[in-house]
Amino acid sequence: MTTCNSCSQTDCSASKRKPNENEADFEDRQKLQSRLCHIRHKIVVLSGKGGVGKSTMAVNIAMALTKAGKRVGLLDTDIHGPSIPTMLGLEQANLMGHNEELMPVTVAGLKVVSAGFFLHSQDDAIIWRGPLKMGVIKQFLKDVAWGDLDYLIIDSPPGTGDEPLSVCQLIGHLAGAVIVTTPQKVATVDVRKSITFCRQMKLPILGVVENMNGFVCPGCGEMTTIFGTGGGRRTAAEMKVPFLGSIPIDPEIAEASDNGHGYVDHYAASATAAIMNAIIQPIAALDNADAA
Amino acid sequence: MTTCNSCSQTDCSASKRKPNENEADFEDRQKLQSRLCHIRHKIVVLSGKGGVGKSTMAVNIAMALTKAGKRVGLLDTDIHGPSIPTMLGLEQANLMGHNEELMPVTVAGLKVVSAGFFLHSQDDAIIWRGPLKMGVIKQFLKDVAWGDLDYLIIDSPPGTGDEPLSVCQLIGHLAGAVIVTTPQKVATVDVRKSITFCRQMKLPILGVVENMNGFVCPGCGEMTTIFGTGGGRRTAAEMKVPFLGSIPIDPEIAEASDNGHGYVDHYAASATAAIMNAIIQPIAALDNADAA
Repeated sequence: MTTCNSCSQTDCSASKRKPNENEADFEDRQKLQSRLCHIRHKIVVLSGKGGVGKSTMAVNIAMALTKAGKRVGLLDTDIHGPSIPTMLGLEQANLMGHNEELMPVTVAGLKVVSAGFFLHSQDDAIIWRGPLKMGVIKQFLKDVAWGDLDYLIIDSPPGTGDEPLSVCQLIGHLAGAVIVTTPQKVATVDVRKSITFCRQMKLPILGVVENMNGFVCPGCGEMTTIFGTGGGRRTAAEMKVPFLGSIPIDPEIAEASDNGHGYVDHYAASATAAIMNAIIQPIAALDNADAA
Repeated sequence: MTTCNSCSQTDCSASKRKPNENEADFEDRQKLQSRLCHIRHKIVVLSGKGGVGKSTMAVNIAMALTKAGKRVGLLDTDIHGPSIPTMLGLEQANLMGHNEELMPVTVAGLKVVSAGFFLHSQDDAIIWRGPLKMGVIKQFLKDVAWGDLDYLIIDSPPGTGDEPLSVCQLIGHLAGAVIVTTPQKVATVDVRKSITFCRQMKLPILGVVENMNGFVCPGCGEMTTIFGTGGGRRTAAEMKVPFLGSIPIDPEIAEASDNGHGYVDHYAASATAAIMNAIIQPIAALDNADAA
C-alpha cells in the first residue's frame, strides 16, 4: 500500500480508507492528496462568459506572484481551447514523463501545465465529453511533479460545467476564486451565475475583476466605453463580493498575449500593469498573512 | 407504436428499428427524426474561443433571415451561460408546455428556445456535467413545437465538447457551420480547432466570420486594431475554408445586445448592419437555391 508520508497530520482524510472504497481508488486518492498537501494556496480563475480575459488574468496573476518571489504553478484546465501555451510562447512545448511523473514546463520560474502540451499540432481539436475531461484534470493534479508550491493558479474554461466542477471536487479545499468579467450586461449576467456556483460549492470568492472597461484612443485620447462601463463593480456590490479592480482595453495586452509575453512582465512600467499589480495584492496577501 | 408520418420517404432510417434498440429508444428516435424532418436547413454557429461574438452572430443571422421572409428558429445550446435571452430582451420569458410539447418563445416572427427560459432567476447557475446537457439538447430538438421551418440556427457554447458534439450527433445532417473568431492569435488558434472538429464530424463549413476587426474612434476617426487585424481571413485562407467577412468593433453592437435589440434590425441603416447582411447572403442562398 502506498502511504502518503507527506505530512504529520494525524486526522488526514487521505490516510483512512473509506467504506466501499477499493484499494486502487484509495491509493489514487492518497496520491492526489499527497500532491495537493504540498501546494499551499489553490486559486481558480473563473468566468461566466468566454473571451473576457480570464486566461490573461490567470497568466498575469501567476507571473506577478512569481516575480514577487513566490513558488507558483499555473494549470490550464481549458481542454478544448487552451490559450496558456500561446500566451506564454510555449506552443512547441511538450510534457515530459520522468519516473511515472509528468514534468511541468518551466518558464521564468513558473511551472506550467496545459492540455495544449499534449497536441501533435495546434490545429488538433480535443473532442471530448465531460467524464474524459475530469480524468485528465485529475491526472494534471495527481501525476504532475508540482513539488512544493506557494500557489497553484488554475485557469478554468468559462461556465459552470465539468471543468470547474471537477477542479472543486478533486481539490476540496481551494483558497478561493477570482471571477473575471467585462462591463457588458451579457457578461455580468453570467458572472452572477459564477458567484452562485461558488456559493453552492462553498468556494470563497476572492473578488471580481472587470476587464475591458473603456478604450482610450491613442490618436486623440478620447475614451470610448466599447463594452459599457462599471458593470463588474455594480455586480460585485449587488452580489456582496469584493471588487478587485478595473482594467482598461489596452491593445498591448492583446499584443503581449499573442506574442507569448506576460503583460505584467513585458510592460512592467505601464499604467495598466500597475492596475493589474494592485488587483493581485489581495492574492499575494494570502501567503504573506500565513508567513507573518 | 408511434409512427413518424411526417414524410413519404421510404428509406427513412427512423422508420426501421435498429438491432438491439428497445421500444422506448426507437420511439424517441422517431420523434426526434419527425421533428427534424420539418426543418429544412439546420445551421450551427461555432467558435473555438468564447467572447468572440458567436451569440451576436447567431441572433443577427436568425433575425436577418426572418426579415427576409424565412421561417426561422433560434436554439441556444449554451446551458451555462445563455446570452440569447438578454440579447433579445427575453429575460422574463418562460417556455410553456402544451399537449406534451414545449412552445418556443416568439419574438418578431422568430421562434426562440434557450436554457435561460427555465431559470427561476437569472442569477441561477446550471451546474451540470455533459450527459445531462446532451439530454436537455435532445429535448430542445425533440419536444419543442418548432413546426415547419426554413432554418434552425443553433448557437453553441465555445469549444469542441459536449454541446456541439451532441448537436452533431443528434441532428445528423446539418447544412453547415458558421465559425466566428476575432483577429487575435489566441482566438485563431482555437478557430483552427473548430475547423478540425467540423472535418472530423463531416460537417460542411459555410465559412469563417472575423469579428472585432478594428475600432474607429468616434472622436477623431482613427482606427485602432485592438485585437490585431486579418487573423480570421488569414486562417480561413490557410485552412482552405470560405471567408464570409469582417465586422468592426462597434459599441452599438454591444449596446444593442445589452438592451435586447437585434442589431441588424435596430441599426438597419448602419454600415456595420450592411456588412452583417452581406455575410448572411451565402446562408440565405441555401434556401433560395432550393426554391429555384
